[in-house]
Amino acid sequence: MTQDSLPQIPGIRLASVPARIKDWQRDDLLLIELNEGAIVSATFTQNTFCAPPVTVAKEHIAGGNIRALLANAGNANAATGERGLRDARACCAAAADALNIAEQQVLPFSTGVIGEHLPLEKILQAIPTAATHLDGSGWDAAAHTIMTTDTRPKTATRSVEIAGEQIRIAGIAKGAGMIQPNMATMLAYVATDAAIAGPLLDELVKEAVQASFNRISVDGDTSTNDACVLIASGATGPQLGDPRSPEYEHLKAAITEVHIELAQAIVRDGEGATKFVTVQVRGAASSEEALKVAFEVGESPLVKTALYASDPNWGRLVMAIGNAGVEGLETEKVNIYLDDVQVVEAGGRALDYTEEAGEQVFSRAEFAITVDLGRGDCSEHIWTCDFSHEYVTINAEYRT
Amino acid sequence: MTQDSLPQIPGIRLASVPARIKDWQRDDLLLIELNEGAIVSATFTQNTFCAPPVTVAKEHIAGGNIRALLANAGNANAATGERGLRDARACCAAAADALNIAEQQVLPFSTGVIGEHLPLEKILQAIPTAATHLDGSGWDAAAHTIMTTDTRPKTATRSVEIAGEQIRIAGIAKGAGMIQPNMATMLAYVATDAAIAGPLLDELVKEAVQASFNRISVDGDTSTNDACVLIASGATGPQLGDPRSPEYEHLKAAITEVHIELAQAIVRDGEGATKFVTVQVRGAASSEEALKVAFEVGESPLVKTALYASDPNWGRLVMAIGNAGVEGLETEKVNIYLDDVQVVEAGGRALDYTEEAGEQVFSRAEFAITVDLGRGDCSEHIWTCDFSHEYVTINAEYRT
Repeated sequence: MTQDSLPQIPGIRLASVPARIKDWQRDDLLLIELNEGAIVSATFTQNTFCAPPVTVAKEHIAGGNIRALLANAGNANAATGERGLRDARACCAAAADALNIAEQQVLPFSTGVIGEHLPLEKILQAIPTAATHLDGSGWDAAAHTIMTTDTRPKTATRSVEIAGEQIRIAGIAKGAGMIQPNMATMLAYVATDAAIAGPLLDELVKEAVQASFNRISVDGDTSTNDACVLIASGATGPQLGDPRSPEYEHLKAAITEVHIELAQAIVRDGEGATKFVTVQVRGAASSEEALKVAFEVGESPLVKTALYASDPNWGRLVMAIGNAGVEGLETEKVNIYLDDVQVVEAGGRALDYTEEAGEQVFSRAEFAITVDLGRGDCSEHIWTCDFSHEYVTINAEYRT
Repeated sequence: MTQDSLPQIPGIRLASVPARIKDWQRDDLLLIELNEGAIVSATFTQNTFCAPPVTVAKEHIAGGNIRALLANAGNANAATGERGLRDARACCAAAADALNIAEQQVLPFSTGVIGEHLPLEKILQAIPTAATHLDGSGWDAAAHTIMTTDTRPKTATRSVEIAGEQIRIAGIAKGAGMIQPNMATMLAYVATDAAIAGPLLDELVKEAVQASFNRISVDGDTSTNDACVLIASGATGPQLGDPRSPEYEHLKAAITEVHIELAQAIVRDGEGATKFVTVQVRGAASSEEALKVAFEVGESPLVKTALYASDPNWGRLVMAIGNAGVEGLETEKVNIYLDDVQVVEAGGRALDYTEEAGEQVFSRAEFAITVDLGRGDCSEHIWTCDFSHEYVTINAEYRT
């Protein structure tokens, strides 16, 4: 094993074990144990067909005093009805037994195929083993354990000094397809040893998700299962309770950076993705309008296939902007740039634009499409990827 | 040339000629001449970046008394600014000259690549030739002329007897990608020799489009250019002005059927499509809700790649339903059927469902996915196709 990229977070121990949920050799079950007094906040999928583990996790987190997280890959325990709920609760009960805590102190997570029942016995057998392997250094292994169609683990870390003490932040995430705003097939766990008051942590996870995971798109679908969890173990430093204190602002910025780095890693690892593209919309009348236009551009299959082909087909950008339904848009005020090459000026092809200049930008592995709507002062940006043959292959063959 | 599939419509003459708008040999310019007294109604793209010919067509149709339609393939004259507007007007003026009518009596249409200026000289040279080749039998040729990425022409016809007279309906359409509700890259011209009062015809085109072109999806994108035009030449039969008369209802049903057949032909010819799938949603609390769910299912890239793979991955259906944001959806009341095979019962896998039975349905070239939401009496349906490797190839290479 290579050197761990993520630091230990005092108060938190992890274990990855193979429960053999699918016919594979890898670790697929992750147990995370939190110290007493740790505070946990989370955001969950907006999909109304949310999976039983999400239902249970929401119920348990509302009770507070969470002491463990249990996540499995390979099976989403979604669309599994009453039995799925019983299975999720049984997993929590087993983890609680092994850790000598209450069932309601465990948050369950599942990711993988939808519509199949969990191989419950396998998971129940693996949990006690996991409980005996808990270790503070398990973050990098954990990032591997939760992977599904991901081609690589996703990790991010920062550290900040608060009141003379070094505070650490470690984050892991999984997700490569079905990624869309509102917490699509994605699990993310970010932890810090700072002490943050519960209400403040609730705000922080929402703001960090809004700035990160809600700004990415791989294919526009949103899953049944996903969650972003933020943990403050409170093992180090003073309790932070004032949202306007410089210490908190400093920590918040670092935690948000971890979220953004993880979100970008998901786009970079988008199913079949060969390009990482920032869509920036400025000159909008409102933030909502800017985001709407950015997502229309970033999610259009025609734009995404043009990105794949390295074809600066800016007509498709214009088409996508027009689809955002911006009331009263004056097309003759719209300018578009590919990195620093202006391609559209006043709603038409820029006079000195050349196809060669556009192709040069579109051939880059990373670039920005900037749309100026010329009607206000608001800007927003999202991150997207291209739509390739490989995407179709992955998703046409996922279950087989 | 094979036998024409479409009848002549008294009062209407057509001509297709090669203007060589692209480097190709085929006819690419269509001129349609209407008799005096013909009534024309149309619906246009909702894309706010609508193309100059759309702007001009809307302006001219508002003035009434339309006598000609001019359509070119190969170039959409979209995102072409002021010059695009001048070009569209110049095309109208040339057609008006050739037919000895006013410029405002001509409706212009363009379809093809976005963002390039029309090769105006070529079109202006071809128009007089077209005017000398007008003929009542030109419908089948016209269906070829307006094609872009279409692999085959799209035509439909019906005839009905009204007051002892035979009334004919002929329809042609083009479109294979960028197809979505609200008139996506699509041109459709439907004509009848019946006499229909203007206000009634305006209603009729809206209702017919709502029942047909607004219920199809190929890739969820909506184009800058598209239009559906309904022409009543009035050459045959009595004037129909009462929407409740049996004669009108009879004619309306036949005209709507022509629209539906054309819309379905577009889905069948969807870029790279190998399957034609009806998504039916019933048990909805409202029509809007039913349509929303149907489009979430029919437009999900994950569902569409599963269709392509003939993989009855019903978890993706459930995911897509959950994404429709149906407030208060009780997932335990949801049932799903693949043709007559029940796959989901009460929100989970149906007890007697087998993967083999599901695969058998998904292997069909045509089948229906029926979702029962179990919360009301409303039903709606849409038509969609699968998302294939070929789709990516076509759209990654369109301009080259």
